[in-house]
Amino acid sequence: MAQSGKLFLIPNTLGGETVLDIIPQEVISIATSLRIFAVEEIKSARRLLRKMDREFPIDECHFVQMNKHSGEKELMELLMKLVRGENIGIISEAGCPGIADPGAELVHLAHSQGIEVNPMVGPSSFLLALIGSGFSGQKFSFHGYLPKERKDRVKKLKDFEMDSRRNGTTHIFMDTPFRNMHVLEDLLNELSDLTELCIASNLTLHNARIRTRTIKDWRENAYDLSKSPTVFLIGKSQ
Amino acid sequence: MAQSGKLFLIPNTLGGETVLDIIPQEVISIATSLRIFAVEEIKSARRLLRKMDREFPIDECHFVQMNKHSGEKELMELLMKLVRGENIGIISEAGCPGIADPGAELVHLAHSQGIEVNPMVGPSSFLLALIGSGFSGQKFSFHGYLPKERKDRVKKLKDFEMDSRRNGTTHIFMDTPFRNMHVLEDLLNELSDLTELCIASNLTLHNARIRTRTIKDWRENAYDLSKSPTVFLIGKSQ
Repeated sequence: MAQSGKLFLIPNTLGGETVLDIIPQEVISIATSLRIFAVEEIKSARRLLRKMDREFPIDECHFVQMNKHSGEKELMELLMKLVRGENIGIISEAGCPGIADPGAELVHLAHSQGIEVNPMVGPSSFLLALIGSGFSGQKFSFHGYLPKERKDRVKKLKDFEMDSRRNGTTHIFMDTPFRNMHVLEDLLNELSDLTELCIASNLTLHNARIRTRTIKDWRENAYDLSKSPTVFLIGKSQ
Repeated sequence: MAQSGKLFLIPNTLGGETVLDIIPQEVISIATSLRIFAVEEIKSARRLLRKMDREFPIDECHFVQMNKHSGEKELMELLMKLVRGENIGIISEAGCPGIADPGAELVHLAHSQGIEVNPMVGPSSFLLALIGSGFSGQKFSFHGYLPKERKDRVKKLKDFEMDSRRNGTTHIFMDTPFRNMHVLEDLLNELSDLTELCIASNLTLHNARIRTRTIKDWRENAYDLSKSPTVFLIGKSQ
């Protein structure tokens, strides 16, 4: 029986302007050795590969788009390639694949067939925000995107505040940039003066900002987040 | 007034044998430009710096050890240096500082004085395990080390299993290598046949292993983890 291929999880940068020296050399070597890619968005995957190697033979590559519209068929096609011995790279639109994108499903299928999975080191906005917040990293929860309805969102935020106060857990969440100011408004209006909030925006970009303050302080120091990829954290020091 | 210094969070490798090309170039440039370091363990910090640059002037550097025995005095000394305009790097024994080490306290203090904090991209075993597991990355909780008492540990593991089944949250936890086999035993004895468990050991090392299986399958495929840094995950596919 032929040997199976390997599945590599290739990290992308966190934004167009980011220089490539935040991606480790090993990732560049492996990514540019591959010719089959399962990607969240073809354009950003091509851009990454071209940045890694200006001579990279994009036209010889096979890209399979994986998003909420893609289905069983694409996944099975990719799995069959792995089983037949071909190596595949998963590339997300930004950061590490599998955090908030459809890559995880292919990884899960790969395990079911005994395919070797290789997660690779690279940028992750929630992780950079967590370590840069100064909040406890011993115990934390990542919640992804918040509910769209204000009432549901406020309830979540208050739950995070309560749990952080009682158990010391750090709560990490985010939203799409155009809703960031609604989230911030809710945080500043609904949480207690002394609750600590970290706002981390544009991480790894030239205009990165990360700062932990009390809600009271933030009320006087809020800034425009409506166009900035932002991670919010509620927590306390260890 | 003089400008404040900056605080850099420098990732370490995940083990002695790891090659340096899993650390991004930017981290190497910045780390080797610094001369003051707040470190979890002086030996591993020196080793990292020497690996980054064989000519690195270790003897011109000031290392302050930060662990559970160090106190207010060391922290204040470091904070004063930052306030006076000196740059400082935090280096953990392994991986990104601030996840399960004393670095977070200095970061928190730095924010209180308006010091610029710069988290840098690098290896993190729980993150690699999470993306490599194939479990949902939309919602997850990191619990750090498990309780030492068997009864308490089993209760936690059952809570994780229940929550993962009900809410789809991925639960991530670990223990010191010499207790890994007790954790594995509890997982295999106490959880349900069809619950999915990912075991990720020696990540980024030559003998890295990461695999997601059902508890039933693991019972027939368990391997020795007693000397391997290991991350355990309970979860399900998205």
